[in-house]
Amino acid sequence: MSRPVLLAVLATLAAAAPGVGLAQSAPAATARADDATPVLVSPDQWRAMAEAGDRYPMFAAERARVEREVRAAMAAGINVPQPRDLGGGVTHEQHKANYKALAGAGALYRMTGDRAYADFARDMLLEYARLYPTLSDFSGGAASVKGRLFWQALNDSVWLVYAAQGYDAIRETLTPEQRETIDNDVFRRMARFLSEENAPYFDRIHNHATWATAGVGMTGYVLRDPALVDRALNGTRRDGSAGFLRQVDELFSPDGYYAEGPYYQRYALAPFIIFARAIQQNEPERGIFQRRDGVLLKAVDGVIQSSYAGLLFPVNDAMPDKGLTSEEIVTGVAVAYSQTQDPTLLSIAEGQGRTLLSPDGLAIARGVSEGLARPFDFRSMQLRDGPNGDLGNLVFLRHGGANGQALVMKNTQQGQGHGHFDRLGMLFYDNGQPIVRDYGAARFLNIEAKAGGHYLDENDSWAMQTVAHNTLVVGGASQFGAVWQTGEEHPTTPLFFEVEDGLQIASARLEHGYDGVVLTRTLAMVEHPDLQFPVVIDLFRADGQAATDYDLPLHFNGHIISAFEAEHSVRERPVLGEANGYQHLWVDAVAAPTSESRSLTWLLDGRFYTYRFAASSPISALLVESGANDPNFNLRREPALIQRMQGQADASFFSVLEPHGLSDGTAEIVQGATSRIADIKRVAGDGAEVVVLTLVSGKTLALGVAHDVTPGARHRVQADGQTYEWTGPYARFDR
Amino acid sequence: MSRPVLLAVLATLAAAAPGVGLAQSAPAATARADDATPVLVSPDQWRAMAEAGDRYPMFAAERARVEREVRAAMAAGINVPQPRDLGGGVTHEQHKANYKALAGAGALYRMTGDRAYADFARDMLLEYARLYPTLSDFSGGAASVKGRLFWQALNDSVWLVYAAQGYDAIRETLTPEQRETIDNDVFRRMARFLSEENAPYFDRIHNHATWATAGVGMTGYVLRDPALVDRALNGTRRDGSAGFLRQVDELFSPDGYYAEGPYYQRYALAPFIIFARAIQQNEPERGIFQRRDGVLLKAVDGVIQSSYAGLLFPVNDAMPDKGLTSEEIVTGVAVAYSQTQDPTLLSIAEGQGRTLLSPDGLAIARGVSEGLARPFDFRSMQLRDGPNGDLGNLVFLRHGGANGQALVMKNTQQGQGHGHFDRLGMLFYDNGQPIVRDYGAARFLNIEAKAGGHYLDENDSWAMQTVAHNTLVVGGASQFGAVWQTGEEHPTTPLFFEVEDGLQIASARLEHGYDGVVLTRTLAMVEHPDLQFPVVIDLFRADGQAATDYDLPLHFNGHIISAFEAEHSVRERPVLGEANGYQHLWVDAVAAPTSESRSLTWLLDGRFYTYRFAASSPISALLVESGANDPNFNLRREPALIQRMQGQADASFFSVLEPHGLSDGTAEIVQGATSRIADIKRVAGDGAEVVVLTLVSGKTLALGVAHDVTPGARHRVQADGQTYEWTGPYARFDR
Repeated sequence: MSRPVLLAVLATLAAAAPGVGLAQSAPAATARADDATPVLVSPDQWRAMAEAGDRYPMFAAERARVEREVRAAMAAGINVPQPRDLGGGVTHEQHKANYKALAGAGALYRMTGDRAYADFARDMLLEYARLYPTLSDFSGGAASVKGRLFWQALNDSVWLVYAAQGYDAIRETLTPEQRETIDNDVFRRMARFLSEENAPYFDRIHNHATWATAGVGMTGYVLRDPALVDRALNGTRRDGSAGFLRQVDELFSPDGYYAEGPYYQRYALAPFIIFARAIQQNEPERGIFQRRDGVLLKAVDGVIQSSYAGLLFPVNDAMPDKGLTSEEIVTGVAVAYSQTQDPTLLSIAEGQGRTLLSPDGLAIARGVSEGLARPFDFRSMQLRDGPNGDLGNLVFLRHGGANGQALVMKNTQQGQGHGHFDRLGMLFYDNGQPIVRDYGAARFLNIEAKAGGHYLDENDSWAMQTVAHNTLVVGGASQFGAVWQTGEEHPTTPLFFEVEDGLQIASARLEHGYDGVVLTRTLAMVEHPDLQFPVVIDLFRADGQAATDYDLPLHFNGHIISAFEAEHSVRERPVLGEANGYQHLWVDAVAAPTSESRSLTWLLDGRFYTYRFAASSPISALLVESGANDPNFNLRREPALIQRMQGQADASFFSVLEPHGLSDGTAEIVQGATSRIADIKRVAGDGAEVVVLTLVSGKTLALGVAHDVTPGARHRVQADGQTYEWTGPYARFDR
Repeated sequence: MSRPVLLAVLATLAAAAPGVGLAQSAPAATARADDATPVLVSPDQWRAMAEAGDRYPMFAAERARVEREVRAAMAAGINVPQPRDLGGGVTHEQHKANYKALAGAGALYRMTGDRAYADFARDMLLEYARLYPTLSDFSGGAASVKGRLFWQALNDSVWLVYAAQGYDAIRETLTPEQRETIDNDVFRRMARFLSEENAPYFDRIHNHATWATAGVGMTGYVLRDPALVDRALNGTRRDGSAGFLRQVDELFSPDGYYAEGPYYQRYALAPFIIFARAIQQNEPERGIFQRRDGVLLKAVDGVIQSSYAGLLFPVNDAMPDKGLTSEEIVTGVAVAYSQTQDPTLLSIAEGQGRTLLSPDGLAIARGVSEGLARPFDFRSMQLRDGPNGDLGNLVFLRHGGANGQALVMKNTQQGQGHGHFDRLGMLFYDNGQPIVRDYGAARFLNIEAKAGGHYLDENDSWAMQTVAHNTLVVGGASQFGAVWQTGEEHPTTPLFFEVEDGLQIASARLEHGYDGVVLTRTLAMVEHPDLQFPVVIDLFRADGQAATDYDLPLHFNGHIISAFEAEHSVRERPVLGEANGYQHLWVDAVAAPTSESRSLTWLLDGRFYTYRFAASSPISALLVESGANDPNFNLRREPALIQRMQGQADASFFSVLEPHGLSDGTAEIVQGATSRIADIKRVAGDGAEVVVLTLVSGKTLALGVAHDVTPGARHRVQADGQTYEWTGPYARFDR
């Protein structure tokens, strides 16, 4: 179709529907191979969204939200300022607001047929067409790769991802001249800036480059430019050595785990999912969502699995208040649902309380509204780390559904610098609460008064140190000498992971966290008819070459109900140590070394928790609290128990954590406030240990763990008139 | 109707409906003046409840709950043990379970027609008829008035209140002989025990005696014994000098405030409401719910008004986790709704999530199910204390509905020993959270490991002391020398209480809290177009006769974002003092005295709070935390700011508390993190003070407060080129 003919057709179409109502005025789908019909969302999809009206509350609510946002932007007038400010500054925030307004206005134009939205987006893009060609690299700031609209190229990439969606929706409404202006002076120039002028950046295998490939690739689809799409998919050399497909192959483990951990997985997910969706829409034959056995969908599932009560497990340098309601996960859930129709994703969407203004969001809203949602299957699983899945794992042992018990074992890598020194760390959740918790990152994100919203000094001095986590500290130092690059060279070795009826167990070994000491931890979640809830049995072994000191912290959460006998610092509180995080711990109480088992009971949100513990040599027990050496009140004040063994080469720490009972302050009811476990002991044999729980009923529940985890190896431990014999790495004995 | 004729009628009725379905088998209402038809709930009311079936979810759920409870009791078999144990012990809990089972079985018999329920209640009551005559006063325990079934008479009274309801429901099913046995050997004997053998107890004006009058009075209705009813209503002398009516007249203030405070008001409410309902049912002409201008309904409203986010304000020796879902308030709401049909009570019932298996509960469930609920009107109000309303007040200043701002001023009496030494205390709630809070009682109710579940030593040494509250400490001591009886003799004097558009204000004076020092506090909640939320302006004056020291604590709740310059105790934490609660405070930081205003900003649940403060003479500022001298970890660890002025006779502390901004960890959005108030100053004139806020915009907002609160008095303060002139106790100036 020649240009004059096309214009005539458009004029006819416009004349045919003057001032019409919603359903008709939504742009009609046509069969013609027009070069400006929307391609990121098809005309049919737009029509379905327009026709949905207010039928599906979640969709209607999102539409109303976007309408408010876009109308406010329209009322404020177009503002495309000369870039000047760093992140958070006025021009930075304005360009961010603009890309959201562009995407929103495009969608609203398609859904309402109201040309005012299209004209607003057009006029804004024409402003960008005037500004952008005049820009050179941002001056100021410390970005490794500078942007043009923003201080760093990352933000320019994000701008392109969103603006391309808005442009796609309204491009059909433009004159050829306008289209050419915007095509060339905004989109092609930005694509060139990202993929040619910054080719090394574009070709990185890193999530920042994923935003760049997504922006360039989506621009390619919108401009009908296969070469741009090819660069995006296969890198600037167009040989697959870089680009989006390579990023998909290398940035996720085979289980969909992202190297930087769940907190960053949530963030990294967005460009992968958004661009994959565009690829699926335009080149379904690529089967992008099936690539690597569906790794992108596994990544969405994995990030949800990495959460409890709506919040992501705060391992690997994470803000503990980050949850599933984040925009990126809303996007991930909607796109994944469109691909799979998995009804359990709908319950996650219900929890999020919102969805997208997109075909995927419509599907979510319709599914929820039709009552199709089913509970999400939070299940026991391991997420292997590393592109080949051989760099450790993150283990979840679950029981009792979403708000039941969740035991997390952290055996992953150092997260490319975003990891803490917390290998073999454990977390425990129950009753909707963190019971044994991780501090997360020491940071008040975006709060200016707290170090400008950046990482606090206490992130290094406390949050990254080993003592801030629930894993063994050797010689008062942090794992790998607190050097993350060293950590990246030494993966943790998963030994076994089994989920049986009534017994779930995982074990892993860390050989190089400390020189000359091999650490092996085995964690099990065990059910027993005498016990109200599953209990956590923990056996933590250190095999050292020389006498040293071992500290095993337990960062418990709750109010102490009863503790072991100890000397209390009631008149002044000393600080525990000088360095490696110890300088941030106040000492509340110290109990002298003993071989006897001790217990600590605390109460949280109406449930009691009793932790019963001892070790292979006498240990002292310290009750401490974070917050020392903190003149700016940067740290949260959280209690911990530290088990301390001194002057030993080898150590085995063994314990059981038991949730029990009920305290209802309103009904004034207390039940089951005392533990149903009477004692814990360890018996050691040749190459194996057995942790024996004696229940109040007199029954025993024992867990045997062998040093040699070969499946067929036979083990035998004899003590106290009992013989424990088994084959394989572990065994349970009920007597 | 003679007895043989009645039996014949009953036999005929029974024969007419053998094995029939639910609707028919529910006992039929008859017009005959039978001496065994139910009187506490009429046959018509029972039928309506039976016919409701599963139509109203809240009612159906409660019925299912009671069914489970009663069936479990029936399955366990009747167990009416010889009384032996104290509270919490086996026989104590069994007799408690029995009265619930009796009331439940009676209701279920009426609603299902299933004789098994009636027979179970009958057989249990016949067991009581065998046991009860053999009992003498309980031996052991330290009850001031011993019970027979229980260690204290209070529990016997409660037993009677519930058992009478169950008996009323099934009495019609008994043979005359059975009825006579139970009438005489259980109910008349218990009524005699409570109202004759313990006449002085029965005649007390105290909520324990209310349970006794309620039990005896309801027994009177069930047994058709007007003399018993008369004793219950008018006391053993039957002259109105004691008894239930007198209790209604004296235990509540004219505004429905109960002398022991909201926490105990909730508890005391139950027998008042339950018995009043029985009176209304049997003698509506008494207009019991209209008595004293409807004081019982005011008491229900008052206890709801005394709550925030579902929890009662923890003033006067209260457990801070006690909420509106307590059984007593469920009862109060249901009965009040039946009397008033106030649809705002339905939203409270929705929040409670349950209701009663009674006609009132049916009305609630129907109202909720029909969507009649309206938001409860949490409003600014004062509840005067004392039978005549002249013993101080409890003030609530509210804005923005249930989860908006609530400022509480505590000017009530000493709560008959259940009060803390916290006159002129203030609490502030916002955004669903306590922002400036009260410790409540130091107690883990019913948790054996914590001092047997009784008050902890720290209740005396910390929670009851003045420094544990948000009010002025003079000379390091607690109000009234920490002797509550002294406190009861000296009411706080409310000076004024006004609710205007944009300005709500209350003021009160305490003359005898400390010898030779008169304390006057004025609290205002003020709106201003520049400010996102209302702010709290506080002016606390002390007029002393000699130089002394003043400490003003602020028990704030949240994480410190920025604080004034101070010397920090980073390496060890000293204890603040030796006695009067100070021994429980760790010192985190101390700022030297200055006359300049300071500020402290904290963050709670996504909102910032900036407190800006200064005083008439230089003050130091201390940041402290509770938890020192607490070897059993009995105290919660909560931060506080203490403003300290030393060596002055007179003092004026002035401050403003400003909620602002937003921090959303999931969306990673921070807005309005800095205060919009630039400074606070105080200018003093002859007999008046003006607190002047300078806003960031340059505007000022000033509050003038006069010492003389006579309405017509004129005041004039001049300073800094500004003149403030007004008439009356206070005035606002916007410039």
